[in-house]
Amino acid sequence: MERRFDRLLLGLDLAGTFVFAIVGASAAHGAGLDLLGAMVLAFSTALGGGIVRDLLIGATPPGAIRDWRYATVAFAGGAAVLFFHEWVVRLPPGLLVALDAAGLSLFAVAGAQKALESKLPAFLAVLMGAVTGAGGGTIRDLFLARVPLVLRADIYVLAAIAGAAAMVIARRLGASPTVAAILGAVLCFAARMTAVALHLHLPIAP
Amino acid sequence: MERRFDRLLLGLDLAGTFVFAIVGASAAHGAGLDLLGAMVLAFSTALGGGIVRDLLIGATPPGAIRDWRYATVAFAGGAAVLFFHEWVVRLPPGLLVALDAAGLSLFAVAGAQKALESKLPAFLAVLMGAVTGAGGGTIRDLFLARVPLVLRADIYVLAAIAGAAAMVIARRLGASPTVAAILGAVLCFAARMTAVALHLHLPIAP
Amino acid sequence: MERRFDRLLLGLDLAGTFVFAIVGASAAHGAGLDLLGAMVLAFSTALGGGIVRDLLIGATPPGAIRDWRYATVAFAGGAAVLFFHEWVVRLPPGLLVALDAAGLSLFAVAGAQKALESKLPAFLAVLMGAVTGAGGGTIRDLFLARVPLVLRADIYVLAAIAGAAAMVIARRLGASPTVAAILGAVLCFAARMTAVALHLHLPIAP
Repeated sequence: MERRFDRLLLGLDLAGTFVFAIVGASAAHGAGLDLLGAMVLAFSTALGGGIVRDLLIGATPPGAIRDWRYATVAFAGGAAVLFFHEWVVRLPPGLLVALDAAGLSLFAVAGAQKALESKLPAFLAVLMGAVTGAGGGTIRDLFLARVPLVLRADIYVLAAIAGAAAMVIARRLGASPTVAAILGAVLCFAARMTAVALHLHLPIAP
Repeated sequence: MERRFDRLLLGLDLAGTFVFAIVGASAAHGAGLDLLGAMVLAFSTALGGGIVRDLLIGATPPGAIRDWRYATVAFAGGAAVLFFHEWVVRLPPGLLVALDAAGLSLFAVAGAQKALESKLPAFLAVLMGAVTGAGGGTIRDLFLARVPLVLRADIYVLAAIAGAAAMVIARRLGASPTVAAILGAVLCFAARMTAVALHLHLPIAP
Repeated sequence: MERRFDRLLLGLDLAGTFVFAIVGASAAHGAGLDLLGAMVLAFSTALGGGIVRDLLIGATPPGAIRDWRYATVAFAGGAAVLFFHEWVVRLPPGLLVALDAAGLSLFAVAGAQKALESKLPAFLAVLMGAVTGAGGGTIRDLFLARVPLVLRADIYVLAAIAGAAAMVIARRLGASPTVAAILGAVLCFAARMTAVALHLHLPIAP
């Protein structure tokens, strides 16, 4: 049972890595980056959040370095954008937003779960979920020398916090890891997509 | 005696965390950040320096993650600014500068002390004091996509180096940890406030 | 034999640290940084890549912190620029580019070598070579609030990848560590300088 959950979590984590690599490589468009710069963006976006989380909770070397599958999947996602860009630019713009929301949801839940396994208190597990989900995009925006989008636009970090908190609370109430993960991921994804669809924003800081 | 010093150091560290969270959340003003973005700035400013130091000296997971009190105090400082902002904006501007100088002093001394405890040589302990003091503000400025203020304005990093060096030297000369910490913190605070009051600057790099 | 190689590697690493400190301090020119800010740039450029690599592969505390020689050499390189700047500005501009290429080559090979010693797979060792070589310059550019040059200009990261890959492959084919290191470093340096001389660029990301 536990092993089955580990495999599920790895699958979710790799799925999140793949979609974030696509989102990251797409962000190179218009920034004047060369092909390798775009690939660096793909890697940073896909692996940055998990690496920062692992450094923070002391799980070194980070899973993204220890396990070759993460880098391979990130490479595949970035290369897909660069090779098939004529096809990618014709995708509906909403699809990229949905992929990004899916990556955020998968990472928020996986990050909080990993923090719980490292015996961090619930409060910090939720924070680590947010760091995992939003960290990659933050590093990508730092590389692009702009204020990280996640700090100023829409409901983004808040959706990650909500999803991670829902998972942690569900675990505390006795839900199985799988049920708790699905609950948290669905809530995060729904919150993020609802905010985009309805143009919901947090109030601007005074 | 040693335990009393540990408690003193923790108190100083948490006090520094609180004032840096206030300074960080206040920096969101005018940057178009939302409430959560402002809170992220508060956390980064308050916890970033100590986290970088702990990663560098191999004390993982960092104290700011392991001990829930750091995140709680950072949250309280950031929330105070956001809830009482009408009251905060009426504070004399010099008070924010003084709070920032207090945080710098507390962190420079606490950082150098922690590096000494990890058996780093004196030279690197002083560097770690500077990293702890100036690291949070540097990360905050990176998030705001501007050249870190600490690299270009006034006597800032230099004050942290002076305070950390004074503490390390005093320890070497046989002073008790408490006396050395007070000496270093007072020197750093005095150097920083004097530089602000008299508009002292380091020469611009040629 | 192995000890002799260790000493060779340390020498190459310190040589790379020295030239990158010179390059870093020189980058302060025109950015309005003060003397200490220029020194921070020197340290970041010289030590940043190796520190990030050591954090990623779990070799904490990083060698640049554990071994006082790194910080001392970085300090010497930065101070040399600041003290002799009238002499430095009269150097032919190509020399700075060549020094930077030399640092990149030394770090790419040393980084990949250190990753191999940590039992990372070959693919990740090459990545770690690129991180070590290009990481310091990336952090420097983040501090200067500009899109990292290494992401958008010339053949830079690619040269590091080529040099690191050549070293890893040569090791696999039975070459001695010294021969493999020289081969990789020469290839990286030649690729970088050729790209600069012939204005070779990677295609811009679509």
